[in-house]
Amino acid sequence: MGRPVYLDCDTGIDDSLAIAYLMAHPDVDLVGVGTVFGNIDAHRAARNTLDLLALGGHGHVPVAIGAEKPLAGAWLGGPAHIHGGNGVGNVELPRGDREPLSDESAADLLVRLAHEHEGDLRVLAVGPLTNLARALDVETALPYLVESVVVMGGAARVPGNVTPVAEANIFNDPEAADRVLSAEWPLTLVPLDVTMEHMIEEADRESLLAADVPIPRALGQMLDVYYEFYVGTFGRRCAPLHDPLAAAITAGGATPLVAPTVQVVVDSTDGPGRGQTICDLRGERVGYPDQPTAHCRLVLSLDAPFGPHLVERLTSS
Amino acid sequence: MGRPVYLDCDTGIDDSLAIAYLMAHPDVDLVGVGTVFGNIDAHRAARNTLDLLALGGHGHVPVAIGAEKPLAGAWLGGPAHIHGGNGVGNVELPRGDREPLSDESAADLLVRLAHEHEGDLRVLAVGPLTNLARALDVETALPYLVESVVVMGGAARVPGNVTPVAEANIFNDPEAADRVLSAEWPLTLVPLDVTMEHMIEEADRESLLAADVPIPRALGQMLDVYYEFYVGTFGRRCAPLHDPLAAAITAGGATPLVAPTVQVVVDSTDGPGRGQTICDLRGERVGYPDQPTAHCRLVLSLDAPFGPHLVERLTSS
Repeated sequence: MGRPVYLDCDTGIDDSLAIAYLMAHPDVDLVGVGTVFGNIDAHRAARNTLDLLALGGHGHVPVAIGAEKPLAGAWLGGPAHIHGGNGVGNVELPRGDREPLSDESAADLLVRLAHEHEGDLRVLAVGPLTNLARALDVETALPYLVESVVVMGGAARVPGNVTPVAEANIFNDPEAADRVLSAEWPLTLVPLDVTMEHMIEEADRESLLAADVPIPRALGQMLDVYYEFYVGTFGRRCAPLHDPLAAAITAGGATPLVAPTVQVVVDSTDGPGRGQTICDLRGERVGYPDQPTAHCRLVLSLDAPFGPHLVERLTSS
Repeated sequence: MGRPVYLDCDTGIDDSLAIAYLMAHPDVDLVGVGTVFGNIDAHRAARNTLDLLALGGHGHVPVAIGAEKPLAGAWLGGPAHIHGGNGVGNVELPRGDREPLSDESAADLLVRLAHEHEGDLRVLAVGPLTNLARALDVETALPYLVESVVVMGGAARVPGNVTPVAEANIFNDPEAADRVLSAEWPLTLVPLDVTMEHMIEEADRESLLAADVPIPRALGQMLDVYYEFYVGTFGRRCAPLHDPLAAAITAGGATPLVAPTVQVVVDSTDGPGRGQTICDLRGERVGYPDQPTAHCRLVLSLDAPFGPHLVERLTSS
């Protein structure tokens, strides 16, 4: 039996890779999924999630719909040019036979699972942090109930992907991110600094398409749209592994190498830095001396290339 | 006859290195210096500057006192633990026999020199940008009168030195920096990204102390205090070459290697990003495609180590 994991996501192509990775990992017991606006709306994200879970033999995992907009302000819709009009690269997944929970929000599901698996639950958030912020309001003891929190988001020393300094998950709800990153739980932040360095390539996509099980084939199809978008960033068809990398760190399948525990503050002003994760890396040349009140581990590099591990995991299961 | 250079500075140990470099460079005609609060107050910065100029046989160069505080808010005093109580590492320089201009501010001096050397004047600013911002108010055509502007300041992909994201010159007057960086002149920004990579070491300090002319000896003495401060940053006695590097780029003695022309915006909010230079480096992986309205060249690396060149220039003249 694996370790209990709650996933919060906005499914999404790289979210789909993360879900597939979690289903394929023997040490993971995916006990619930909450969805949030971001790559796509939260309702569609739940449908995508249920369909992926069914396709991967995990139809039993409960899926709850969460926030459709940030704590403050409006959501302007998902980036169809990145994730396709349906969030999963315009691929038509076979419809699973389950529906989202009708009586429980994502925040409520997270709180319930934190109590049911007290001290053991690993929380993995790969979308805007609105559901986690709400869960902290519902259950103020949440930071002390969960085992750990891993968040894909932010950019420390590299450019953002929405503004020059802001990454999409944080930018989509800076007020929620501020709340989640300042809560007193052991949090690992997986920013663009590391996710942009671990890639999936065209040859990998061909391996996925050639697999004789449905999930990798569906992922290989989805990646077509995603790769097209990233030609503008990388100059070739490929994609960075944002969400699956955070999933692998949660599962223990990827090991951070440089990962200092430092002060991280979210810029929630309305200025040009809105949505930036401001990380205090001033001690970088002397081994990051202790910052006594810091509780955010910032992953800046891994001990091994992640792409090959991901593809092997997805195609061998 | 060298090229006319106006220097705006807050002298300052590394400002002193910059002044010495400019005096020693055959292609530079230092036609005026304005001073500003920052490393020390503007009055003391003028005294330090006059004494250095006299010691280096440049007593004829006019020095004008500029702003003693930023455009908005107050100045809290200079960092005596970095530059010493007098700005020049507590070294007592022989008093030069000139005084600052009594009838002209730094901003007025800059505007006058820009007219006198129309199309030729190189402006080098190595302190807070208050005087340059005021000069832009006095003479709105200033951006079209000068040959170029080089500013030491900001941090693009590396930590700040006052906050996790803000460098001191910009942080000391973000409103002025915003005005100067958005004016339509050809501006080269020399941020911590490059200045923190070019060092002066203990052996270099010994070379300066062993010189048989007074300026390098005085610089070698000043560096004692400066080196002590930087032990906390680098783990050894040494110093990064902030201001002299900007001086060398102005003089043509250092050549930028990676130096894209990109959008740069100064965060002048009261949030955690105040004083940050937000640089749009999102095109870094595909050779920085044109950003049509950008006019700020951001120096990220040089084509050669600068420390040895600086020390040779200072000790051979």
